[in-house]
Amino acid sequence: MQTVRGMRDLLPEKARKKQKIVDICRSVFEKYGFEPLETPVVEEFELLAKKGSGGEAIKEEIYYFKDKSERELGLRFDLTVPTARVVASNPQLQKPFKRYQVGAVYRYDRPGASRYREFTQADIDIFGSKSVLCEFECIGIMKEVMEKLGSEFYIKINDKRLLEEIAVQAGVKKEQLKDCLRSLDKLDKIGEEEIMKELEGKGISTKILDALKKGFDKYSKLESAKEINELIAILKENGMEKYVKVDLSLARGLEYYTGMVFELCSGKGPSIGGGGRYDELIGMYGSQSIPAIGFSFGIDRIMDLLDSEISYEPSTRLFIACIGNVQKEAIRLVQEARNAGINSEIDLMQRSISKNLDYANKKGIPFVAVLGENELKAGKIKVKDMAKGKEIEISIKNFGKEITGKINSQ
Amino acid sequence: MQTVRGMRDLLPEKARKKQKIVDICRSVFEKYGFEPLETPVVEEFELLAKKGSGGEAIKEEIYYFKDKSERELGLRFDLTVPTARVVASNPQLQKPFKRYQVGAVYRYDRPGASRYREFTQADIDIFGSKSVLCEFECIGIMKEVMEKLGSEFYIKINDKRLLEEIAVQAGVKKEQLKDCLRSLDKLDKIGEEEIMKELEGKGISTKILDALKKGFDKYSKLESAKEINELIAILKENGMEKYVKVDLSLARGLEYYTGMVFELCSGKGPSIGGGGRYDELIGMYGSQSIPAIGFSFGIDRIMDLLDSEISYEPSTRLFIACIGNVQKEAIRLVQEARNAGINSEIDLMQRSISKNLDYANKKGIPFVAVLGENELKAGKIKVKDMAKGKEIEISIKNFGKEITGKINSQ
Repeated sequence: MQTVRGMRDLLPEKARKKQKIVDICRSVFEKYGFEPLETPVVEEFELLAKKGSGGEAIKEEIYYFKDKSERELGLRFDLTVPTARVVASNPQLQKPFKRYQVGAVYRYDRPGASRYREFTQADIDIFGSKSVLCEFECIGIMKEVMEKLGSEFYIKINDKRLLEEIAVQAGVKKEQLKDCLRSLDKLDKIGEEEIMKELEGKGISTKILDALKKGFDKYSKLESAKEINELIAILKENGMEKYVKVDLSLARGLEYYTGMVFELCSGKGPSIGGGGRYDELIGMYGSQSIPAIGFSFGIDRIMDLLDSEISYEPSTRLFIACIGNVQKEAIRLVQEARNAGINSEIDLMQRSISKNLDYANKKGIPFVAVLGENELKAGKIKVKDMAKGKEIEISIKNFGKEITGKINSQ
Repeated sequence: MQTVRGMRDLLPEKARKKQKIVDICRSVFEKYGFEPLETPVVEEFELLAKKGSGGEAIKEEIYYFKDKSERELGLRFDLTVPTARVVASNPQLQKPFKRYQVGAVYRYDRPGASRYREFTQADIDIFGSKSVLCEFECIGIMKEVMEKLGSEFYIKINDKRLLEEIAVQAGVKKEQLKDCLRSLDKLDKIGEEEIMKELEGKGISTKILDALKKGFDKYSKLESAKEINELIAILKENGMEKYVKVDLSLARGLEYYTGMVFELCSGKGPSIGGGGRYDELIGMYGSQSIPAIGFSFGIDRIMDLLDSEISYEPSTRLFIACIGNVQKEAIRLVQEARNAGINSEIDLMQRSISKNLDYANKKGIPFVAVLGENELKAGKIKVKDMAKGKEIEISIKNFGKEITGKINSQ
């Protein structure tokens, strides 16, 4: 029996690494004043169909189904749409509403390397503010998460309005803009030659490709470059401009973006997150228009990329093995160690010492205490430091205290 | 636009309370040496149909659908079945395999008070050991989680083998046992009179009801009471027998249990978790038979029960408001506070001081710093302690350090 195609289990080592990444995200989000929000995995199809070009066509890209009352449902494909529903239907939420959510999302994509049909996003959004300070906070969070992960990164930024202005200057017609941006978005994936063909096929001016090559400086005086300039000024004042580069071809396909867009790239290249400003989405779900900006870390991408770099530590620090009829005392000791805050296991299999040492060794448990009738008589228990191969003796009477001192001094 | 029927959003206050409960569970699970495991929300229908009586009938109780390739899928209804799949298909996992998982599960139930179609379980299981020490560890974990939640509780235990022996003694035929246990399981919900009728209707001896009233002492000498006796002895040695009571009518409907069963009850009455031993389930998913025991906390039940008892604290400790043209300096200060480990927000709305104080007050942010041009000139910033209504002054130059001292001393 296997997992569903495109989905995966995370065995303990991977699951702990994921937790480490998620815990880092959570702590940074909270440092910036974001509060958690949770929404269901299942949503009404009508809601999911409302985003971007969406509509019926989106059925092909998501898990869509009907419940037993013929309600049309689907699994969420991102965390933004459900949050937009929450914000639109809870006008009492104080603005700015800064929320984060870490959760699985579902896409009926072709599975591939680091491309899953169930994957986890760690998502932040700010609702209610048009200030470029929001963009700065997004960059600050990306930087801090990546630094805590100890990973190289850079952040591509662009502004959809600027890209559109450049496109129009290069002869792209207004009604072609959507199509044009959708093609440009694939530049990294399929290369310039293919994009050129695609644009020609659509009857869109290919001058846009040369125009984008001229770089940001050439266009930095345009009105639509104003926010990028403001953001860069703030970044400079805070010594953070080095993490960011303007990439005029960054389009981030999603049509609901209205201003600045971001893409977080690993030093190794691939995109591990993205986002941008989408001031018009909330208005689609409710009566009130509310400015919004957000960003998602692709947790599975990060996990797969940093797999070998993130250290794995088992939770268990101490294993207690028994020789002979000492289980009663061994239980007392393991409970004492736990009460003292030491993550501990006791032999549940009544195995030999060598088998228990083998188990502890394979699991990476750093300390093993062996209790036998002799130890019990002497009032001392042997504790083996698995890394150093050394044994020490600890008083059974003061076990909790002494073992804590020993383990915490490591 | 609303959530799907029977599902709910958790706005920040509820979401933080849930996180608090989940974090407590995780820390206790790890203290007992359990490692995290993650499995997908979506599973093959064939897998889901294998548990207990399951089969096609289970389609009525779960979210069942087909994907675009006509594969039969379903949303998991518990975390045990997916884990059983993982254990059966990963024989390399070291035994005992002690894993935990916190995740949403889905049931197409009639929604009601604290009964949701999407709800979260915090689940532990031990695979590979038949020792009654496993049962002891389950009890230990329940006790410790409930104590950390500061909540009254008690734990009902029973043994399916004992219940069956008593039933047979009371004239229930072997082939009626399944049906009989299924009826007894409803005792708490629908009362003795209804159960009596149900048993009569099925032609099952109603003497079982009187037999169960005689209490555990009457049956404690039976061979099938052996493990309950062993467990109680260990609990006594560790001063934990007071948390547990044997309830002979506890059947926990699920047919896959093979030995001891548990139910965790809030002091206020309702069940907030349950589990038991199921030594034959893994064999159904793979070639190897592996003993197993597990337990789940119903996180939504716990949240709803303890809602008013669990304290809520916003993550943000400090809010920085500006008067006049000082945003540049304010950004530096908020970044300094964050770098010093203080969860901080800065005004993103360019609002007046009174509006910002109102925002901080409603959100429960304990400190508000107000920076204006005068403060900037004087090199001092005013920090308001919202609870005490007092203001102090802090040096702008040493802001990070001084604000940390101030906030942490609270």
